[in-house]
Parts: sequence; structure tokens; C-alpha cells
Amino acid sequence: MSAQGTLFIISAPSGAGKSSLLSALMQDRPKDMQISVSHTTRAPRPGEEDGVHYHFVGQSEFKALIEKEQFVEWAEVFGNYYGTSQTVIEDTLNKGIDVFLDIDWQGAQQVKKLMPNAIGVFVLPPSKAELERRLTGRGQDSAEIIAGRMAQAVSEISHYNEYDYVIVNDDFDTALADLRGIVRAQRLTLTSQTHRHDGMLKGLLAESL
Amino acid sequence: MSAQGTLFIISAPSGAGKSSLLSALMQDRPKDMQISVSHTTRAPRPGEEDGVHYHFVGQSEFKALIEKEQFVEWAEVFGNYYGTSQTVIEDTLNKGIDVFLDIDWQGAQQVKKLMPNAIGVFVLPPSKAELERRLTGRGQDSAEIIAGRMAQAVSEISHYNEYDYVIVNDDFDTALADLRGIVRAQRLTLTSQTHRHDGMLKGLLAESL
Repeated sequence: MSAQGTLFIISAPSGAGKSSLLSALMQDRPKDMQISVSHTTRAPRPGEEDGVHYHFVGQSEFKALIEKEQFVEWAEVFGNYYGTSQTVIEDTLNKGIDVFLDIDWQGAQQVKKLMPNAIGVFVLPPSKAELERRLTGRGQDSAEIIAGRMAQAVSEISHYNEYDYVIVNDDFDTALADLRGIVRAQRLTLTSQTHRHDGMLKGLLAESL
Repeated sequence: MSAQGTLFIISAPSGAGKSSLLSALMQDRPKDMQISVSHTTRAPRPGEEDGVHYHFVGQSEFKALIEKEQFVEWAEVFGNYYGTSQTVIEDTLNKGIDVFLDIDWQGAQQVKKLMPNAIGVFVLPPSKAELERRLTGRGQDSAEIIAGRMAQAVSEISHYNEYDYVIVNDDFDTALADLRGIVRAQRLTLTSQTHRHDGMLKGLLAESL
């Protein structure tokens, strides 16, 4: 046996800073962590690479993957399909790499059903006033649009209690250290360590040297 | 509601470096962590303070505490009693302070039965050769004595899989960072955070500002 990665599901309302946290976590390009790369039927935008930003596939290929139950979660957004392949995730986990899946609570529920060992992390803003400040943006949007964003954020937040861990993103560096702490601890669980140190444990428990 | 501490049970064979790890963790006298202070019937040694190193009590008082089922674990060693009071631990946890209990696998089993939310952390040496090197000490002990220590260590190690987390103490700083990571992550679990941020969560989920 060797190290086995963990699948982390990261969810948050807009304005909680989830994307910045994930970018910061990946900044040094750690070899033992990866953001999950989704499949999509939409056309690549300039600069987007196949296999890096998305796995770009045609509609018929995507639908065939749905038929084969290859996706842990998928959705249709404005006529384009987006989905997360269970095979891709499992291959990565089997290499000992932790995979981060940036999805909403609905996607999280789908993934948890199929991959119950996934660890859910929910990122919260520190207060409603701060959330509104972050969602107000540059002051160019109408009160109605901002109220809509707030309502959507509160609806997402109402699912925080379906996750294993909760990070409050008040101070960014603290929140990043929190996320790193969760990832580190997960690698130290009995299951993870038994995989990683299988040979060493056999050696320690052997009758003689 | 307010922050609720976690009880950490730390076990290890001699030579794994558990005491050094706990000392390092407590070095800056963090306000939110405490090593559990045991009750004992043995006489204080020079420099030992009541309530700091031990709660020093008489035999009759100790036995009364046993009768009242006040101990999560207790043992008699060379005619002296040693025990861990559940009340003392719970009072500390209720102040939001994490408590560290330095006990062997037998004590750990007793504690887990009475306080199932306790988190067990087992510290391992990196290899049998390194363990023997550490247990050989200054080379003044007979091969028989060292073999006895090794047998006892291996017997303790055989219980590593009864713990939630496993730390391999190869590099001390890494092992200390591992321990800190486990403590940090535990404070971020859904249960811990729901206690700590009860008011904030109500505010975030309220209908309006």
C-alpha cells in the first residue's frame, strides 16, 4: 500500500473568499494537491488548455459519460454541460494526491453519496454586514441585484451544517492556515497513515529486528 | 453557546518523543491548551506544586473519588494511586480549553468509554532501529534490559490502531507541526465551530440585516 489522497469538497457563498483560498493553497504548485478538473461541453476560451482548465468534450461524449455513470456530479448551465468524473478523481487519489472540488451544496450532496469518504469544508464570511460589503462590489449595482446576491448567499450558507469542517474567513491568512491545518490533519488520520506507513508499521511490530 | 475544548488522548511507546512534543506544544503557555493534571496519593517531590504538577490527595480521599466514579481512568503503581478526574477535565473543556491527557493504551480505552468525543493521537518512532537506538540510551544498560524496553514499546505500539490520528516522529519539528495541525483542525469541525460561532451563524442566516 502507499499514500492515498483525500477528496476535499469546498463550498461557500459568493463573497466568502473560497476561490482566493484555493488559489493561495495551490500557489506553490504542491505535488500532493490538485484542483479537480471538470469536463465541459462549452468551447475553450482563449488561453484555456484541455486537461488543465477543463476536459473539453462534445455533447455526445458528455452524454455517453452520463449514461456510464462516470460523473459524481453534473449540471447543465445555459445549454452547456459541466461534470466531475469519478474515474479522474479516483485515479488522482490513488496516486496519493489530495483533490479539491469547488462545488455548491447540491453538487456536494451528490458527491458525498457516491464518495462518502470525501471531506466537506464550508467557508463562511465573518458576518452578514461584511458579506454585504463584499457583494456590493464597486457600488455600480442596484439594490435589487445586491439583495438577490445576498439571498442566494444566505441560501448557500444555510447548508453549512452538511459539511465536516467550517472555516470563517475573517482574516485571510488565518483562514488559509485553517485550510492547510485541515488538509494536514486529514493526512494523519489512522486510515491515511496506515496506508502511507504500511511497511514501517509491519517493521515496528515484527518480533525481532 | 461558546467555544468548547477537545480532550486529546496522547499515547506512545517510550522513545517516541511524546513528552518532548507535549512540552514544545505548551512552551508558549497557550491559554487555550492544558495538560491534564492528575490526582495522586504519592507525596509531593521538591518543587512540585499542588494543582500544577498533581492534585495531591490522601488515600481515603482518593478512594472516595473512586467510589463516586469521579475518575475517567485510574491505576495503582507501586502502592500509590494515580487518576484523572472527569470533573476537572469537563470544567476545563467547558472553558473552551483543549485538554491533553498523556496516558497509555489501557488508560486511553477507559477514557474513550466514558468520554467518547475524546480524540486519540498515537505517536510512533520512525523505525524499529531508531526506536532501539533511542531506548539504548547511554549504552550503560544490559542487553536484557534494553530487550525488555523494546518488548514493552512494541506491545504499546500494537495498539496504535485504536487511535484517531497517528504521528510519526522522525523529524521533531514536522511531528510538532503535525500535532498542531490536528489540534487546529479539531477546532474547525462542524461541532466545534457551531459552538464557537453560534451568534454569528444566527446573524448570517437571519432574514434581514
